[in-house]
Amino acid sequence: MALIVKKFGGTSVGTVDKIKNVGERVKATLEKGNDVVVVLSAMSGDTNRLIGLANEASSRALGTPAYDMILSSGEQVSIGLLALALSEMGIEATPMLGWQVPIVTDSMNCSARISEIKTEGILGELKKGRVVIVAGFQGVDPEGHITTLGRGGSDTTAVAIAAAIKADLCEIYTDVDGVFTTDPSICKEARKIEKISYDEMLEMASLGAKVLQTRSVEFAKKYDVPLMVRSSFSDREGTLVCKEDKEMEKVAVSGITYNKNEAKISVVRVPDRPGIAAMLFKPLTEKGINVDMIVQNISHAGHTDMTFTVLKEDYPRAFDIVKEIADDIEAENVDGNTDIAKISIVGAGMRSHAGVASLMFETLSGNGVNIQMISTSEIKVSCIIDETQTEKAVEVLHKAFELGKNEVKEEVGI
Amino acid sequence: MALIVKKFGGTSVGTVDKIKNVGERVKATLEKGNDVVVVLSAMSGDTNRLIGLANEASSRALGTPAYDMILSSGEQVSIGLLALALSEMGIEATPMLGWQVPIVTDSMNCSARISEIKTEGILGELKKGRVVIVAGFQGVDPEGHITTLGRGGSDTTAVAIAAAIKADLCEIYTDVDGVFTTDPSICKEARKIEKISYDEMLEMASLGAKVLQTRSVEFAKKYDVPLMVRSSFSDREGTLVCKEDKEMEKVAVSGITYNKNEAKISVVRVPDRPGIAAMLFKPLTEKGINVDMIVQNISHAGHTDMTFTVLKEDYPRAFDIVKEIADDIEAENVDGNTDIAKISIVGAGMRSHAGVASLMFETLSGNGVNIQMISTSEIKVSCIIDETQTEKAVEVLHKAFELGKNEVKEEVGI
Repeated sequence: MALIVKKFGGTSVGTVDKIKNVGERVKATLEKGNDVVVVLSAMSGDTNRLIGLANEASSRALGTPAYDMILSSGEQVSIGLLALALSEMGIEATPMLGWQVPIVTDSMNCSARISEIKTEGILGELKKGRVVIVAGFQGVDPEGHITTLGRGGSDTTAVAIAAAIKADLCEIYTDVDGVFTTDPSICKEARKIEKISYDEMLEMASLGAKVLQTRSVEFAKKYDVPLMVRSSFSDREGTLVCKEDKEMEKVAVSGITYNKNEAKISVVRVPDRPGIAAMLFKPLTEKGINVDMIVQNISHAGHTDMTFTVLKEDYPRAFDIVKEIADDIEAENVDGNTDIAKISIVGAGMRSHAGVASLMFETLSGNGVNIQMISTSEIKVSCIIDETQTEKAVEVLHKAFELGKNEVKEEVGI
Repeated sequence: MALIVKKFGGTSVGTVDKIKNVGERVKATLEKGNDVVVVLSAMSGDTNRLIGLANEASSRALGTPAYDMILSSGEQVSIGLLALALSEMGIEATPMLGWQVPIVTDSMNCSARISEIKTEGILGELKKGRVVIVAGFQGVDPEGHITTLGRGGSDTTAVAIAAAIKADLCEIYTDVDGVFTTDPSICKEARKIEKISYDEMLEMASLGAKVLQTRSVEFAKKYDVPLMVRSSFSDREGTLVCKEDKEMEKVAVSGITYNKNEAKISVVRVPDRPGIAAMLFKPLTEKGINVDMIVQNISHAGHTDMTFTVLKEDYPRAFDIVKEIADDIEAENVDGNTDIAKISIVGAGMRSHAGVASLMFETLSGNGVNIQMISTSEIKVSCIIDETQTEKAVEVLHKAFELGKNEVKEEVGI
């Protein structure tokens, strides 16, 4: 007997038949003696239809209260339909909109942050033996206006509800079986991970594994909500995202990710003076350009090189801005390259395992992959390589760290 | 400078372009120095789509809270879109859902009755110089569940809001130019009525003029809200529905209506005992069959005939029920006829004009139309005639009471 939050995305509720399937899953969980809260997105297609209408009505619709009012009607339909489908199966359910829970947020339309979730309503309905169906993605601000949480908002709703009602588990249903050791589409040996820590998942998510939104993982970590990522189209167990435990430390590397969406810019032979980095990056930030990896090495003869990566779509703008600053700070030259990829190994076990980074470097160089930049954090090592070598790099690293389906996992211990 | 409530139905907001037209009308009213509250229905088509989804999810969807939650998402979209369209035109507007106003109702899902409208929110926004856009058709019950008002609900919302905020006028935009002296599709001479009393409008509405829902007219009468029925596709003045005044009394007959949707049933030679009528009509009411006209004449030799009309769709059921009772109450026979029409003349002036009914009877008989039944109220006379003579009857009565376009209206005074 547990309290379980189950979240289903837009494709899982895309038709009434699929909504009935969601009903069957809810029923199965109830029959095992659990209490269930369901969080739903809008039916796939509905959100795009509503966005289209809003943009047709005004060219400045995004970010307005009216836009959020329109968009939030999508989940209103899907949760009502699931309540009807469950009632048809003899299961009593209470659909609740953001303002009915209430899920209180700030007033930032289209990207509101949750400030409070009142739980009496949900807990009261559960106590009556009913299933509670909460509209994902939406909330209400202190003035009673509808808000939406932005991209991945339904995941955030699910995790926040789970945290607030102290659920035993929050299941995120998606269209893949879970989190994989690497992208199965480029590495046949990719294996589903059974258990991964929040921090590893955060590195995996922000590095390119598109299964869970970073924000919902941060939320889960903060409130210690165990997350299960699993497929809505199969009964297979998914990947459990939870607090780090002893077992996880035994594995040096949990997964390998790659990202082909970045470009690099190098400012060559900058005089090594205090304040140079700030002069370079402040204007980029002000123009809304996100800088990812930054590498600066020791200086020679009073000069140093500064290299960083930005999103490919921001590259032309970023290059022009940097070019202008380069003259002011008396740099010799500005170089750029868009044909790069970032490849990373992620693992909480790295902390206690020596030699993880060297095995990565050795494996890449041993296979003819040149490393252009290196950056590390406590639980990941990232290298910038030539874009054309991405697939090869993933494959050889996956093998070197013994992540494959048919390998027995053991300590890497190099 | 007046406070005006404008209500637009589903066809008037069926596309974003039509919603922009509604915006233009709002702008024109504002530019004359008025304050404006707009009440909208859902976009035409949207309601049917939502009903379809709900019925696909459950065969017993109607009347449930989930059904109302789903349906009420329709106006959520249309009011949001109008707010966006107005903002694009430089006009600030606040869209408000039923629960945001709030429009408090009882908990009868799908046919809720309004119990209270809190006006602070609407008046506060108006004071800020904003247009307020209220979602029609929906409310919220005391427990915070969304309800809907049933058929014609948006008209009711508009009139109720107008009453609550003491608006100077409530304009109901529809797809016709106003209320006509009779159906223009069967009588070329039909003329738009400039002014009509609530009571006349109620008789017109319930007798078959499909312009305004009876419930909203009753509401308008109760709270003395002047209603203007007008076209959303032209700038012509519509029909003003208001309190009876001296001018109206000068006109004996304001309009002629007909209804082909009824059938009649006669119970022949019933022993004239107390309680017979109750024995006859109670079982019909209990089976949900509405009885309209009832005629019982004086009795002969202890026996009388009892005739009444029901909706054609209820006729077979009603006939069977009455047949069964006829034996119990020792009636000689039960007769029925579905090929009938009810034709009525309506006018507040009848009270002060003699001879209105006789002119009706004379006109019909003079033109070979046989009258099968007669029923009168204070401001109307209805006759049951053969269905095939409907058009002819309308035409000759319209002429006899000088309702036509080219006639000078004067007292009938017969």
